[in-house]
Amino acid sequence: MRVRRLAIVGLGLIGGSFARALRAAGEVQHVAGFDPDPAQGELALRLGVVDQVFDRAEAAVRDADVVLLAVPVLHTAEALRSCVGGLKDGAIVSDVGSTKQSVLRDVSSICGGLPSWFVAAHPIAGTEKSGVANSFAELFRRHRVIVTPHAGQDPAARALVTTLWQAVGARVVEMDAAEHDAIFAATSHLPHVLAYSFVDMLDRLEHSTDIFPNAGGGFRDFTRIASSSPQMWHDIVRANADAVGSLLDRQIDELQQIRQMMRESRWDEMKALFERARTARERYLTQIE
Amino acid sequence: MRVRRLAIVGLGLIGGSFARALRAAGEVQHVAGFDPDPAQGELALRLGVVDQVFDRAEAAVRDADVVLLAVPVLHTAEALRSCVGGLKDGAIVSDVGSTKQSVLRDVSSICGGLPSWFVAAHPIAGTEKSGVANSFAELFRRHRVIVTPHAGQDPAARALVTTLWQAVGARVVEMDAAEHDAIFAATSHLPHVLAYSFVDMLDRLEHSTDIFPNAGGGFRDFTRIASSSPQMWHDIVRANADAVGSLLDRQIDELQQIRQMMRESRWDEMKALFERARTARERYLTQIE
Repeated sequence: MRVRRLAIVGLGLIGGSFARALRAAGEVQHVAGFDPDPAQGELALRLGVVDQVFDRAEAAVRDADVVLLAVPVLHTAEALRSCVGGLKDGAIVSDVGSTKQSVLRDVSSICGGLPSWFVAAHPIAGTEKSGVANSFAELFRRHRVIVTPHAGQDPAARALVTTLWQAVGARVVEMDAAEHDAIFAATSHLPHVLAYSFVDMLDRLEHSTDIFPNAGGGFRDFTRIASSSPQMWHDIVRANADAVGSLLDRQIDELQQIRQMMRESRWDEMKALFERARTARERYLTQIE
Repeated sequence: MRVRRLAIVGLGLIGGSFARALRAAGEVQHVAGFDPDPAQGELALRLGVVDQVFDRAEAAVRDADVVLLAVPVLHTAEALRSCVGGLKDGAIVSDVGSTKQSVLRDVSSICGGLPSWFVAAHPIAGTEKSGVANSFAELFRRHRVIVTPHAGQDPAARALVTTLWQAVGARVVEMDAAEHDAIFAATSHLPHVLAYSFVDMLDRLEHSTDIFPNAGGGFRDFTRIASSSPQMWHDIVRANADAVGSLLDRQIDELQQIRQMMRESRWDEMKALFERARTARERYLTQIE
């Protein structure tokens, strides 16, 4: 058992699943929790996700060896501010935010620099269902967790967080926070923007009521991510606005190039572009988890 | 048994599956076939998809009561031209093209006007695998077939084609060819352009080799259609260039609006757009087959 006391700030799908998973792995003795929504806290207690729930974050983290901030990424600063006064000496704090430069900026601004005891991490897992009611111990199994180290970080803190994620079945990969944000802008954040934008554009067409009944399986897959939480994706795009914005510029530019090919009947070029795309997807398909 | 002799011009996935399905339904006595690729023809014969294969389309359609042009949509004109001289009086000709205005234009230019015996149709079915080797009798079951009538069409011809599609398990819907092309530009053609463009854009990024291994399930679904046949989608976009082009203009415009919201930190507007999109998708989800 590696952790005597764990505190979860934010009892949702991710925080709840982490608590369940660590307990199932026999790695934690006591789990304390806090959620700004008392109903989520009570539910977490009733479901046995936490042993104890507090009405203030600062009280929940008192005596905790490890604190996990598992809140929407734009609430990271608020969550840390609300509990930092209660941290004991030697406590390790980690997070689960989908953007990492914004988290490091928030932590730094609250602590006056990046503290040695903070470990920025991003588990690549989740379902379209949110809330502690949907949490389950297997959520992270065979998924990746990206850890983005910073200068001055205590190697022991990073090692413990890594070990805990591995204990719940995840594979930990380290990379620079800026690299993380650029990569996930490309694989995840921009696709969400494109999917939302596409569905909204269709919905605004005059004959939109005729469109959707005529959609097939390709449409359903292509637009699936447009059913994700608008609040969460608003937060992520906002927190990673620079990286997403610059990719969106490139995407608009490429679409304009295709439009120009169509206008000028440069069909061979358009076909070559389609072929490049298919080749790229097929080449990397085996690498997609 | 409604058809004594059926001829299939183009022995691929769709033509082969239609022949298999009609035979399985006991609706056809004899199937003749032609394919410009002799290997596909021989394979169709060996697989029992056709009873007889010919080395010229004109020979294959001789004596046929019903002829199905099942070729890539840009080859419709060529296919019809190659067989029209062999059609017997009273023969009915139909097609399976993914765009319908272009097919009607092609037929009209070859026949000097739209003939009473032609029935334009589009089965909404297919897999990522092509060729007669992948054809199967159940391909059309519970799928829609869009029939786009034209002035001067023989109602009996349309009724027979409709009945044959229903006999193989499809649901037939009639609509205007222009409406068809606008709707499928929206639900199918534009999404393919967007997916190809997105993957190609990523592939051209400097750190593209780091991107794909970090992609998850959302990425896989969003880009699935970018694995479709570049040749086929080149044909379709080209044949329906007006409708696809005007939707692509709207899509680019909407993406530029989102970019502007990001630049000006109009986050509430961006979130409202995401919410509209999710609501639209959820509202119509039950209507998607």
